[in-house]
Amino acid sequence: MESTRRGGQAAWWRFVFLAQPAAGGHPPGVAEETDKDPKDELLRALEAADASGFLAAAEEVHYADLAAIYEDLDDEQRDFMLKTIGPELATDVIAELPDTLIEEALNHFKPAQLRVLLGNLSDDDRVDVFQVVSKEAQVRFFSLLGPRDKELTKNLLKYDEETAGGRMTTQIGRITADMTVKQAITVLRRDREDTETLARIFVVDAEGRLVGKIRLRDLAFSTWDTPVRDIMEEADEFVLATADQEEAARMLSKYDLIVLPVVDEFHHLLGVLTYDDALEIVQEESTEDIEKLAAIGGDQSEVSYLNTTVTMHYRRRVTWLVGLAFVSIASGYVMFRFSEVLQQAFVLSLFLPMVVAAGGNSGGQAATMVIRAMALGEISTGNALRIAWKEARTGLFLGLSMGIAIAGFITLVLPSMQSTTGGGFDFPHLALAVAVAITVQVLSATVMGALLPICARAIKLDPAVVSAPSLASTVDVSGMLIYFTVAAAILGLR
Amino acid sequence: MESTRRGGQAAWWRFVFLAQPAAGGHPPGVAEETDKDPKDELLRALEAADASGFLAAAEEVHYADLAAIYEDLDDEQRDFMLKTIGPELATDVIAELPDTLIEEALNHFKPAQLRVLLGNLSDDDRVDVFQVVSKEAQVRFFSLLGPRDKELTKNLLKYDEETAGGRMTTQIGRITADMTVKQAITVLRRDREDTETLARIFVVDAEGRLVGKIRLRDLAFSTWDTPVRDIMEEADEFVLATADQEEAARMLSKYDLIVLPVVDEFHHLLGVLTYDDALEIVQEESTEDIEKLAAIGGDQSEVSYLNTTVTMHYRRRVTWLVGLAFVSIASGYVMFRFSEVLQQAFVLSLFLPMVVAAGGNSGGQAATMVIRAMALGEISTGNALRIAWKEARTGLFLGLSMGIAIAGFITLVLPSMQSTTGGGFDFPHLALAVAVAITVQVLSATVMGALLPICARAIKLDPAVVSAPSLASTVDVSGMLIYFTVAAAILGLR
Repeated sequence: MESTRRGGQAAWWRFVFLAQPAAGGHPPGVAEETDKDPKDELLRALEAADASGFLAAAEEVHYADLAAIYEDLDDEQRDFMLKTIGPELATDVIAELPDTLIEEALNHFKPAQLRVLLGNLSDDDRVDVFQVVSKEAQVRFFSLLGPRDKELTKNLLKYDEETAGGRMTTQIGRITADMTVKQAITVLRRDREDTETLARIFVVDAEGRLVGKIRLRDLAFSTWDTPVRDIMEEADEFVLATADQEEAARMLSKYDLIVLPVVDEFHHLLGVLTYDDALEIVQEESTEDIEKLAAIGGDQSEVSYLNTTVTMHYRRRVTWLVGLAFVSIASGYVMFRFSEVLQQAFVLSLFLPMVVAAGGNSGGQAATMVIRAMALGEISTGNALRIAWKEARTGLFLGLSMGIAIAGFITLVLPSMQSTTGGGFDFPHLALAVAVAITVQVLSATVMGALLPICARAIKLDPAVVSAPSLASTVDVSGMLIYFTVAAAILGLR
Repeated sequence: MESTRRGGQAAWWRFVFLAQPAAGGHPPGVAEETDKDPKDELLRALEAADASGFLAAAEEVHYADLAAIYEDLDDEQRDFMLKTIGPELATDVIAELPDTLIEEALNHFKPAQLRVLLGNLSDDDRVDVFQVVSKEAQVRFFSLLGPRDKELTKNLLKYDEETAGGRMTTQIGRITADMTVKQAITVLRRDREDTETLARIFVVDAEGRLVGKIRLRDLAFSTWDTPVRDIMEEADEFVLATADQEEAARMLSKYDLIVLPVVDEFHHLLGVLTYDDALEIVQEESTEDIEKLAAIGGDQSEVSYLNTTVTMHYRRRVTWLVGLAFVSIASGYVMFRFSEVLQQAFVLSLFLPMVVAAGGNSGGQAATMVIRAMALGEISTGNALRIAWKEARTGLFLGLSMGIAIAGFITLVLPSMQSTTGGGFDFPHLALAVAVAITVQVLSATVMGALLPICARAIKLDPAVVSAPSLASTVDVSGMLIYFTVAAAILGLR
């Protein structure tokens, strides 16, 4: 009896898994072949417009590599590639393409082929497509979906692109707690084609609320009539659909999860995020932060650097550059107003760029530290006072160190290069003036650099809008003011 | 017969997996408990020095959270925590701690406890420990290892910390191609306590060279006497042990792998990297790049921002700041040399900060784009010419746009604020001078910003050493030179 039941269970295992062709596909790609490299084959067939050779080679190459190759092709070659591989394989390739190339790629297909292709996409990839194509294409593509996919897509499109809900897949193993193992297995078997990962199966109650999780192997080793409730574990880690995607990625990373369930505010299970989503999110968010910190605007380009057009590079950089240029006029104006002070002692110009730049540099360091710590979830706006206190001390010590170093230079080295200061004051006074100015400038810029991103966050802006260049342009103004005011006071200029 | 055999196989499944207590542990942690939060319980017990209460609460909290809590404690509380939870649970907590806290944490334990703790660590976590503790502690801890762990640790320590070999775990399912399914299962069962993940089992030949991979479910559904060779798949994706950890993370990410095998140059299987390693690597490398770009030096702190001391913050920032300050004297010197030009037309000072800063900003953008593209593997030093050509065009258009904008300001707006230019020339000439200077400055800074990181890479330096501030300090000098030379020529100053 025991053995028969077990035999019966082994049969469903076979049925569920061996019959599942998509559970891997295990495409080659980086194989160290002793014979010819399929990627070279591919390019050769492409040059020769040899469709059957191309198709044969394409089947040997991982679709992620096919997508990378596609990016580097010209229009005609792209058309050849997509038509040759056909809608089935093209589905995998298009899901890997950068956002900006997706609509164009889809337009290579006729409606009948598009219907196949859009139907083949996993639900989260399909939503990605709808999120990035034009309004016109959205309507056209939507009309090609089957009724269930229409419903699913509409539901997923409700969530913002950068939230857990916007990135989740709904194709998951999902059973209810009051099922028996046998019933659970029947459901999983029925749904298996829609199920992206069976690494974790989630258990819901009659209302669809998340109540537990279970592993396939636990189902496999329990008797048919065991209630799922008895063998499931608590699903302790989950994330709200409206939560920022970064928060979800942090949880996957912190708890080393393969799958993280996504729920609504009533704890209904909506879908899951997987470890590969976490990797993508972390890559994207880091790139975004890095670019913002360098005052590069606009949406992050998913197209590789070399495939981004000059026009696109130009567009993402010009706004900030022109804006910051006009901010710099404020620094110029301060300098212009203090022209008489400068004219009385042109030696001051030797240290003007130093004092000014020191603010941008130290402020930029502080801002970067704080922005990164916020991105990693280490600090929040509630820590503003502690952060200000820490940065004030750090900034003071940094400013003093720089002041002492530069005062040493002015009193010990400079006299050997210049016989007089040329302003009616001695080197020690000049040293004092520059040292005091740089200390005040570094201290104030460090605190500002740390607090501005926190203020941005407090008013719901991305902290990384406080880019290093915009911060530098701001503290340049204060640097000019501090330098000339301090120098005039200490050196007795007017 | 068929059914008996299947029954026999089910028995080993039960044996291998149900008997495996560590295969999860499934700690709670983020549970939305209706009753009290275990983290609050934990802190309450800590305050009250209530050991049994603390232990009970600690068992309800994920060890990643315990590690985060540990970081925020003072010395006495840390001692209480470690002693209360004991070496078993402390193993998991210590493996999650930032590098700088590990040695101190281990020193809370007596040798006998340390022996347990070090033995419990997974081999990659153990190597991490040896990589971060002092020489003295290395010797002391090493003497506490069992003979097999000694051997393993010595082998793993050969690889640099930031390579695939330095991060891999060697605790993997590993069978040979000529085994039968029955033999393979026997081996996996014997080794199961040493095996970190069975998500993918790798197949080697008699010499230990990687020849294939297989999933547990494939073993489970084949008959006892099937040779492994017949059911394994090709292991197409792998990475060399000496490869940079970033390359390994990129492969895990690109091919959505859970496990990536690590081999030596003779294709011997050494170990594996897993998806959670990839996440960690990507996080670390991004933080490193972001910090370097802001001229923050030294080793990236794994301690959270608030737990990093002021001294440590100071140390990581001071070197670059002082160094850059002295570089700025070069800009000051150029300004000083051109004092006569400036004195003839002080109105030039209005646009001096603008022209100078425009170089730093546009160069910083270009450098950031290139550095990020290199980090993502999109470009290499071989693309230098294409990159230079792309950036030259982008820089030219950016410079022209800024020049036109500022020329418009000088001819249309400035005359209403200043009655004369005060230098014996008219506003259109001033506009021309500033526009030409800013165009030349932006063009040259953009190309320099793009090429310097590539040069750094070419001489085996990290491209991110070309930080935005160091680039800015460099192009500040050229900016001063360009501005004064162009202005003097166009405006007829000397």
